[in-house]
Amino acid sequence: MNGADSVCDTLLANDVDVCFANPGTSEMHFVAALDRKPKMRCVLGLFEGVVTGAADGYARMADKPAATLLHLGPGLGNGLANLHNAKRARTPMVNIVGDHATYHVQYDAPLTSDVEGVARPMSHWVKRSLTAQAMSADAAEAIAVARRKPGNIATLILPADTAWTELPADTPAPVKVTDAAVPHTSIEAVRAAAQAIRSGEVTTLMLGGAALRDRALNAAGRIARATGVRLLSETSNRRIERGGARTPVDRLPYPIDLAVAKLKDVRHLVLAGAKAPVGFFAYPGKPSLLAPPDCQQVVLATGEQDLAHALEWLADELGIAADAPRLAAPAAAYEVPATGKLTGAAVNILVAHHLPENAIVCDESITQGREFPIYSASSAPHDWLMLTGGAIGIGLPMAAGAAVACPDRKVITLQADGSGMYTLQALWTQARENLDCLTVILANRSYATLHGEMKNVGVQEPGRNARRMLDLEEPYLDWTHLARGMGVEAVSVDTVEGFARALQDGLKRRGPFLIEALI
Amino acid sequence: MNGADSVCDTLLANDVDVCFANPGTSEMHFVAALDRKPKMRCVLGLFEGVVTGAADGYARMADKPAATLLHLGPGLGNGLANLHNAKRARTPMVNIVGDHATYHVQYDAPLTSDVEGVARPMSHWVKRSLTAQAMSADAAEAIAVARRKPGNIATLILPADTAWTELPADTPAPVKVTDAAVPHTSIEAVRAAAQAIRSGEVTTLMLGGAALRDRALNAAGRIARATGVRLLSETSNRRIERGGARTPVDRLPYPIDLAVAKLKDVRHLVLAGAKAPVGFFAYPGKPSLLAPPDCQQVVLATGEQDLAHALEWLADELGIAADAPRLAAPAAAYEVPATGKLTGAAVNILVAHHLPENAIVCDESITQGREFPIYSASSAPHDWLMLTGGAIGIGLPMAAGAAVACPDRKVITLQADGSGMYTLQALWTQARENLDCLTVILANRSYATLHGEMKNVGVQEPGRNARRMLDLEEPYLDWTHLARGMGVEAVSVDTVEGFARALQDGLKRRGPFLIEALI
Repeated sequence: MNGADSVCDTLLANDVDVCFANPGTSEMHFVAALDRKPKMRCVLGLFEGVVTGAADGYARMADKPAATLLHLGPGLGNGLANLHNAKRARTPMVNIVGDHATYHVQYDAPLTSDVEGVARPMSHWVKRSLTAQAMSADAAEAIAVARRKPGNIATLILPADTAWTELPADTPAPVKVTDAAVPHTSIEAVRAAAQAIRSGEVTTLMLGGAALRDRALNAAGRIARATGVRLLSETSNRRIERGGARTPVDRLPYPIDLAVAKLKDVRHLVLAGAKAPVGFFAYPGKPSLLAPPDCQQVVLATGEQDLAHALEWLADELGIAADAPRLAAPAAAYEVPATGKLTGAAVNILVAHHLPENAIVCDESITQGREFPIYSASSAPHDWLMLTGGAIGIGLPMAAGAAVACPDRKVITLQADGSGMYTLQALWTQARENLDCLTVILANRSYATLHGEMKNVGVQEPGRNARRMLDLEEPYLDWTHLARGMGVEAVSVDTVEGFARALQDGLKRRGPFLIEALI
Repeated sequence: MNGADSVCDTLLANDVDVCFANPGTSEMHFVAALDRKPKMRCVLGLFEGVVTGAADGYARMADKPAATLLHLGPGLGNGLANLHNAKRARTPMVNIVGDHATYHVQYDAPLTSDVEGVARPMSHWVKRSLTAQAMSADAAEAIAVARRKPGNIATLILPADTAWTELPADTPAPVKVTDAAVPHTSIEAVRAAAQAIRSGEVTTLMLGGAALRDRALNAAGRIARATGVRLLSETSNRRIERGGARTPVDRLPYPIDLAVAKLKDVRHLVLAGAKAPVGFFAYPGKPSLLAPPDCQQVVLATGEQDLAHALEWLADELGIAADAPRLAAPAAAYEVPATGKLTGAAVNILVAHHLPENAIVCDESITQGREFPIYSASSAPHDWLMLTGGAIGIGLPMAAGAAVACPDRKVITLQADGSGMYTLQALWTQARENLDCLTVILANRSYATLHGEMKNVGVQEPGRNARRMLDLEEPYLDWTHLARGMGVEAVSVDTVEGFARALQDGLKRRGPFLIEALI
């Protein structure tokens, strides 16, 4: 047994049994160790952004971390954007990053880089194992950190020689990590929240993180129904359990003017696992803080605390019975389109309408999917996973990871074409693992969000240089070819009836399928 | 005129007139500024690794930096791997990275990250512009740093509000950067090198960086011919001018046992722009330093110095006339295959045989192309650009950049399939810009180099987990579909005659074309 074996054993002893991987030479002893552990499911990504994005999607659905295996500083660098998203989602993750042997670093071989430096900006915790003996304890610490609420990115750097060094026969069994109890909020916080809600003034209960899971939402829904308090989520959320009888939650819009308008009459903002809302970006002459300056903010509980317990406590404090009815979603108020040229709205309505029970929706639809949550509030029960950190390229990998976590559920990805291109290699992983992923590419053939932002900076008619940077044309992307190139069947449609047919066909299949929706 | 305009003007005033870009909202004012500067050529990459890889390829061929335009920490993160390669190549590059407005950072919006932290590991120089007034001088400093020999990665962070702030009408014109003179080596270094060469013992002249360009190689070739000294390059090189009458240079092999064998009888190693050879990776029981311990090392000149001058001075010191004959490449010693199942060797021979005059070869062929330099030593004159930092995914982007720099030259990319997948989005840029890029995918459908490394760690028969991480099968990639999906015509061949036909067809065309060579 060598150091690499001891890390694998520690992962498995702590129920970390999926490893999304893109290894290289410095990780070969780790690969050899994984090869001796058939209980570990190794899932290859052909690019590291797929690896970290899949680990994010996996943990969001499995409620436990996956491991990743990455190759030195550059391999970790390739995974950074989706690590950023995972860090923002507070997803638990254990990254194993190989590095040169300890004695080899001084020679500055071509792949040498400051691995800690690359890791730190997108990790909550970074450590380098210095000996084979230390590796099991270091891995246990990484797992403990990753699992601490609300979830953390733990990055463990393993020099090749610590991985390959043999351990003595009497090496102790790997440590089983005991999770710390999740603290409760305080009576003062609960009373302050109750007071705001009882004030009679406009009050919004803003929910984030674990407050968007069903148990917490049940309490929030009872409070909303009984008191009239508004429920609002942040723009970007890790996972919302919604649809069916679940409590509907409004979402803070991305466009700054709409976000400011949404909050303009709010006098009290009660925060449960959410942050006070801020602009996604700054704009000249527009505020960074979106709530009115005189709005009172009350923190009911943070993501480090037990949010479901806090909301239930608040309901108790407000005298609302545990079996009181909760807020219900309004009945579907859309007309299902039947024919005509395909539009983003038609895609959103049709997906919402046909959404199967227990679907997982991975949403990186950017501009074209902004109405999907409205149409789908009354869909069958489903989970809705979003781009949390604004680093585009999460949709396809996140879907792969969610499907690994939940093999019996349909994963539907609403994927904008521009962002889909960042990590399109995830389609291969979907094919390799035969994951039940239905991808809808919302192909508007431009960075539409940036066209909007160009208008915001005062450019009404972009010239050649701007158009060359904002439009995805000359040539158009053909997603059916891209998908087939990676072993995923695909169709392209540009009519409502064509999309409806393709969608229903895709929902009947098992395994990956892609619909290019030309809108 | 705002801060962003002043940066664009400074770039243009200093002959930085190509900008490889993947902008986002925080760079919109910069995009608007670029839109007002038709002299700037803006080249879009659909992923940031394409952007930085293309900027690397461009600068290697243009001998001047391009600018890149990247979106905050995550966008820069996506570009890090190819920045690492460029840093190792000592390619000059000016990265412009947008960030949140200075006053907005404190609110920790979703895309907030430590941009300096992301930049530092792969940059030689990092600076944040703090005011619109400072931006022109900061950009000039970035250009000066980038151009300082042997070349540097300069990363300038532009907060959105410094970019959008209007400058007064009397703002001075942008600074024109004056490059520092490149220092010469010393007479002591030249004499020490001459003494080693005259010793009569086995001596190798190891060339790196600018010592692999024709003028320096001419001097090295005269020295080699006159004295019998061996010429050797590092394994990974920025650009070698070779073929035709140019001086042939042997290459240090990648596999460690071959590298050690190549150097085992060397008594004196004279270094001209090269580093003392070290193992690409460490292996148990194998050395990190590849030259024998008792080998004397003499630094003739470093990359910071004028390498062509140093080699000419050394030739003078050795009494070799300026018009003395130089070392010649051995006559081609291969047989051109005509039929049969396609192999890597056949691809290498056929490409070497048909290489057009002045071709640029972008080489990320990894295992399958290791013999290409042997076959092509006597090909028509060409430039050979390699993966310098070991971070795979440079080939297709580098080709795009080289083609932008040299529109009249054929760019031929020898691209392994596994590494090609990291940045396949570059094919779209090749199509968008109609670049004269012929791509040969050496499709062995595995990470073959890692199969070799698995054997090195003692695993003769990989099990399921190892095979799942090392093989690119189930499903196979289909590069013709992938290419067509991005607007690049493509064919797939698996016979020698099929490849020969496709190659000759591809060489006759103008514009991008891809051959999937199934080997």
